[in-house]
Amino acid sequence: MNTNQKLYEGKAKILYATDDADIILSVFKDDATAFNAQKRGTIRGKGEVNCAISTHLFRLLEAEGVRTHWIDTPSPTTMRVRTVTIVPLEVVVRNIAAGSLCRQTGLPVGTPLSPPLVEFYYKNDDLGDPLLTSDRIRILNLAAPSQVEQLQTLALQINNILTKFFDQCGITLVDFKLEFGLDGKQSLLLADEISPDTCRLWDQAETDPERRVMDKDRFRHDLGDVEGAYQRVLARVLGAPLRSPSASEV
Amino acid sequence: MNTNQKLYEGKAKILYATDDADIILSVFKDDATAFNAQKRGTIRGKGEVNCAISTHLFRLLEAEGVRTHWIDTPSPTTMRVRTVTIVPLEVVVRNIAAGSLCRQTGLPVGTPLSPPLVEFYYKNDDLGDPLLTSDRIRILNLAAPSQVEQLQTLALQINNILTKFFDQCGITLVDFKLEFGLDGKQSLLLADEISPDTCRLWDQAETDPERRVMDKDRFRHDLGDVEGAYQRVLARVLGAPLRSPSASEV
Repeated sequence: MNTNQKLYEGKAKILYATDDADIILSVFKDDATAFNAQKRGTIRGKGEVNCAISTHLFRLLEAEGVRTHWIDTPSPTTMRVRTVTIVPLEVVVRNIAAGSLCRQTGLPVGTPLSPPLVEFYYKNDDLGDPLLTSDRIRILNLAAPSQVEQLQTLALQINNILTKFFDQCGITLVDFKLEFGLDGKQSLLLADEISPDTCRLWDQAETDPERRVMDKDRFRHDLGDVEGAYQRVLARVLGAPLRSPSASEV
Repeated sequence: MNTNQKLYEGKAKILYATDDADIILSVFKDDATAFNAQKRGTIRGKGEVNCAISTHLFRLLEAEGVRTHWIDTPSPTTMRVRTVTIVPLEVVVRNIAAGSLCRQTGLPVGTPLSPPLVEFYYKNDDLGDPLLTSDRIRILNLAAPSQVEQLQTLALQINNILTKFFDQCGITLVDFKLEFGLDGKQSLLLADEISPDTCRLWDQAETDPERRVMDKDRFRHDLGDVEGAYQRVLARVLGAPLRSPSASEV
């Protein structure tokens, strides 16, 4: 028996082995980090909130035909997920300019990006998760060119689904970070989590640039009421219909 | 008369207007900066050395069919150059991994890059000249996609010519930065300078990773004998034949 062997402890989750080599447990923590772990703290209840939001969004994506690592959620902070080999790329989809894109390019926060921008970052804490060009991905051999293309397509497909869903919740999906893994058959599965830790979410009912923030930027920039914002995202996500209505239903 | 109006003073050169709006004077300075001007100093004689090396290399490139802004060199630190609108992209060609590529990606210094890597950086001191992806170039509207393609082609063509030339000098052209400008007809001309300030040059007669350095890295990393290294590059450049021998001449 090997049910509880800790495989890996990350900044926001701990992974445990199960009896089945194809399944691992992902336990969501309240710990929060920002700016490549230079800032550390705790967001009370974050583990449960992010596990519930991620569960809801993984179910939504699966229903829309996107393969994810999610199997089920046996406890409020625990997901059972498929074992995958994580691709060392952070795939970021941006609908509106914010964060490092603005700091690095001088583009004003709030600039709409149409078509959405898909960017790749090297998942490497020691290097500070640097931006990658397609040539750098190739030289570092982080993914095959066909995989990069597939990641780009998947990221845009996921963005379409999530943008519509959050819009129904009265939330603008500004940008978000995805991670993918390869299963035993070398198929790409969406992995990690989708939560206010990994998305920028703006409340459509607010115009004030600080009040509208419903995501980890409240923690990053000390905007206060971090727990409240995360709880409000969860309430909106659970209140919204799971499937977006199709054209014929509208 | 407007012969001496200063148009711009950069980190390494001053530009002056002339009576002819199509021609400006570029005066090379001894001032040296590194790490986005956080480190400042003077390299005695650098202005003359870089003006002479750049003159030689611009002549070589013109002879090989590359259009440059260079017209002539009326004094040891002064070039007459064609007036251009500088494209706000620093085009970097890398034959061997070094510098920021290694710091940002963890790739070991000295890793051969084949084919050579062409990278674009935003020419913007306030932002620290950040790396650009093709999407970011498009979103920031820094150059048209056809211009980016043309810059890539020109950069590789220039790399072919310079790599062969420096090889004849017993010098390995590790990487270098180019700037281009648009003339009145919207044609791209190679601009700025090509010198130990803008190239990484390794002495092929040395294997020691510090002794082989013949470029601004001696200043950046306090390796000493900066002036001597620049002088030796000039001597080798002037000693080498201006045109590389064609296959039939070998």
